[in-house]
Amino acid sequence: MERVKQYLQDHEERLLEQLQQFLAIESISTDPEKKPAMEEAVTFLTKYLTEIGFDKVERRETGGHPLVYAEYTGAEGAPTALFYGHYDVQPADPYDLWDSAPFSPEIRSGRLFARGASDDKGQVFMHLAVFEAMMKTEGRLPVNVKVLIEGEEEIGSEHLYTYLDNNKEELASDFALISDSGMVDKGVPTILYGLKGFTGLEVTLTGPDRDLHSGLYGGAVKNPAMAMAQLLATMKNTDEQVTVDGFYESAEDLPEAERKLMNEAPGEHYPETTGVPETTPEKGYTAKEHTMARPTLEVNGLFGGYQGAGTKTIIPSEATAKLTCRLVPGQDPKQIQDALVRHIEAHVPKGVRAHIKREALSAKAYKVDPNHPLLQKAAESYSAAFGRETVFVRLGGSIPVVESIDSGFGIPVVLLGFGTPEDNLHSPNESFPVEHFSKGMEVLADFYTKAAE
Amino acid sequence: MERVKQYLQDHEERLLEQLQQFLAIESISTDPEKKPAMEEAVTFLTKYLTEIGFDKVERRETGGHPLVYAEYTGAEGAPTALFYGHYDVQPADPYDLWDSAPFSPEIRSGRLFARGASDDKGQVFMHLAVFEAMMKTEGRLPVNVKVLIEGEEEIGSEHLYTYLDNNKEELASDFALISDSGMVDKGVPTILYGLKGFTGLEVTLTGPDRDLHSGLYGGAVKNPAMAMAQLLATMKNTDEQVTVDGFYESAEDLPEAERKLMNEAPGEHYPETTGVPETTPEKGYTAKEHTMARPTLEVNGLFGGYQGAGTKTIIPSEATAKLTCRLVPGQDPKQIQDALVRHIEAHVPKGVRAHIKREALSAKAYKVDPNHPLLQKAAESYSAAFGRETVFVRLGGSIPVVESIDSGFGIPVVLLGFGTPEDNLHSPNESFPVEHFSKGMEVLADFYTKAAE
Repeated sequence: MERVKQYLQDHEERLLEQLQQFLAIESISTDPEKKPAMEEAVTFLTKYLTEIGFDKVERRETGGHPLVYAEYTGAEGAPTALFYGHYDVQPADPYDLWDSAPFSPEIRSGRLFARGASDDKGQVFMHLAVFEAMMKTEGRLPVNVKVLIEGEEEIGSEHLYTYLDNNKEELASDFALISDSGMVDKGVPTILYGLKGFTGLEVTLTGPDRDLHSGLYGGAVKNPAMAMAQLLATMKNTDEQVTVDGFYESAEDLPEAERKLMNEAPGEHYPETTGVPETTPEKGYTAKEHTMARPTLEVNGLFGGYQGAGTKTIIPSEATAKLTCRLVPGQDPKQIQDALVRHIEAHVPKGVRAHIKREALSAKAYKVDPNHPLLQKAAESYSAAFGRETVFVRLGGSIPVVESIDSGFGIPVVLLGFGTPEDNLHSPNESFPVEHFSKGMEVLADFYTKAAE
Repeated sequence: MERVKQYLQDHEERLLEQLQQFLAIESISTDPEKKPAMEEAVTFLTKYLTEIGFDKVERRETGGHPLVYAEYTGAEGAPTALFYGHYDVQPADPYDLWDSAPFSPEIRSGRLFARGASDDKGQVFMHLAVFEAMMKTEGRLPVNVKVLIEGEEEIGSEHLYTYLDNNKEELASDFALISDSGMVDKGVPTILYGLKGFTGLEVTLTGPDRDLHSGLYGGAVKNPAMAMAQLLATMKNTDEQVTVDGFYESAEDLPEAERKLMNEAPGEHYPETTGVPETTPEKGYTAKEHTMARPTLEVNGLFGGYQGAGTKTIIPSEATAKLTCRLVPGQDPKQIQDALVRHIEAHVPKGVRAHIKREALSAKAYKVDPNHPLLQKAAESYSAAFGRETVFVRLGGSIPVVESIDSGFGIPVVLLGFGTPEDNLHSPNESFPVEHFSKGMEVLADFYTKAAE
């Protein structure tokens, strides 16, 4: 291990340069004009993996952007890790809000600024660099590794799921490792041991076949915007509990021990960081508990009628609400979506009709026991490198690939993220702390080694 | 009277031509480029009024578009009528939806198509033509007449109200007469004996200072769109009653006799004409009764968060609702607005802040006794010309000038409208039935004569 660490230190400058070459590639998956850049990123990865000595390095067709697959099978008797990452990035516009060009990586005030620096090219590269350091110093990796780096994460991973389904045998591993997330705060080692699931739908209430004069028709026809308000108000009570039949039925309880972990973890002080007058978690739970481990129902968008300046005295023809839920372990996305549909159908106010569009994307929640030996090992590696105790948290967000690996392969997924809340993911001036680059590689090298034991 | 009728018949063709000249003038008050057309309309009116023998015909400055004032004082001992109308029109776009150009009047299938044909240049011209016929045949008008034709009705009549206030002595009259409305159905004589008042406000609920990730913050902060739904739902119950304290307190009851008038009047079959599944009037009232004579609270616009295609998993930073009320006699617009503000402030859900913009425009409701002798005379004239019994209705809409004349001058306002529900006011293909032009002039001639008795 010491030699690996030394190697990483000795080569840090060169590795940062190579990372910057990788980040300079405009691998924006949603932009058809960037197809050549996507190819360039694939070439960068296959070349790198080949040079450091992976056995089998392949570009795999998916029907969409290709993915990079590589295998190292030289650690006989040791477990196999499936490393997942993505080489595609979000678009960088608006370009004029960037202080340096998004694809001209630049280090300023201890941060590397570039699109993808944190999400996820920067974190993918850390794994590659650690593999290199181990190969060059020890001549081998401590575990077998299967590398899977996709190019469609930012556009929904459509082809990845089919690929995972169709290649179960080849991809079979003992655990998965993903670095595509962050730490609760800069310098605070963080193990993410749970993610929320996801489902949603859009409901439109239609009344009259056109906007009507509010004077001539007010009192005769139901106002769809008011109907929508009345409908939505039936879905949540003032204790912030979702009042949809069956919503909590299968949701796993939140054990006291986990509550303690969550509340002890450093985190945002929501009123100060968001400007809200106070937090409003579900009755009986703290804001941290609710965001991390209790299901939610949110109105993401709401609209009907006149939105311009001043007054327009109409009864709108229709009103729409976009709803999504974040789910916890035990809840089935399809069942929850069904429950929402049943609730809406049962509560449509008189005088309007409901049209429901079910959201096609969904995901189950993911959770691994925070006491799982692999997570404990990861925490040790983390604490050693950062010199602080590791905190264990669950995330209110969803990472569908994690749930997909969990349910498809039945293996634990270790989420070792090194981003920080200040990284500006998906926004202008994305960046990543240079210090987390070196310390993170130390964590990974140590963890890969410990995982072999 | 027979001579007047004969004159109108003999000169109908020429009068229709003159009306078409008037309609060809693009007097769009909201468009600064149409200022010359506004002047042209003023000139048309002053010239016409002068030619037919009004004593005093003046263009009056208002600070905005000028108004036309004229007096006939030759009917010694007879009452004085204040005739109000407006020479400005709504914009005509989208022009490509018109079957003939909006300012190239054209008669097709018994209708005169042009912007302003019904609202209000067509109906103003009917009065002028009747004055002409009386002057040419009888040498005098049966009543004294003060003519007030403004150019800012379609943009809120801002300067008219000041003008009315500042010229009470000059404008003093025994009754007012306005033809700027319609009949319940083509060919059905209609006396409008009441209008609703109006007030409104806009409320914005703000939560976080930016849109937030629904996974990372859902459960910690209140969702402003859901908060808005919950707030609005406190304002109306499922019986379609407004649950704002004091809302109905001063509203005049609806007498049985009036209910009978309203329900007997022909009118729209709302489900068929609007496409709603059923009507939803306030409990205890029919749809006609509610639209004509019970106060309403409508959401005219509602918006917050994401409105694009698909899903965006955010908690919106804010949500806004635009609310307006139509008021009945007894209700004070200011008091109702205050009651709404008090209700909102008392019901703002925890976790968001309310920002209220009070609508500056407001109007009291207007109502005159349907048995008032002038209205009964108008009904007789109406029934005689159209050969059908006159119906008495109140209108759910508001005509602020009526309330302004009522409260400023304390005189009855006789609303003799000749439009039809098919006139497409404010829309492409505005038109007016040619038959209502001739019959309407007969009504007016008869009514001016009867009013002198």
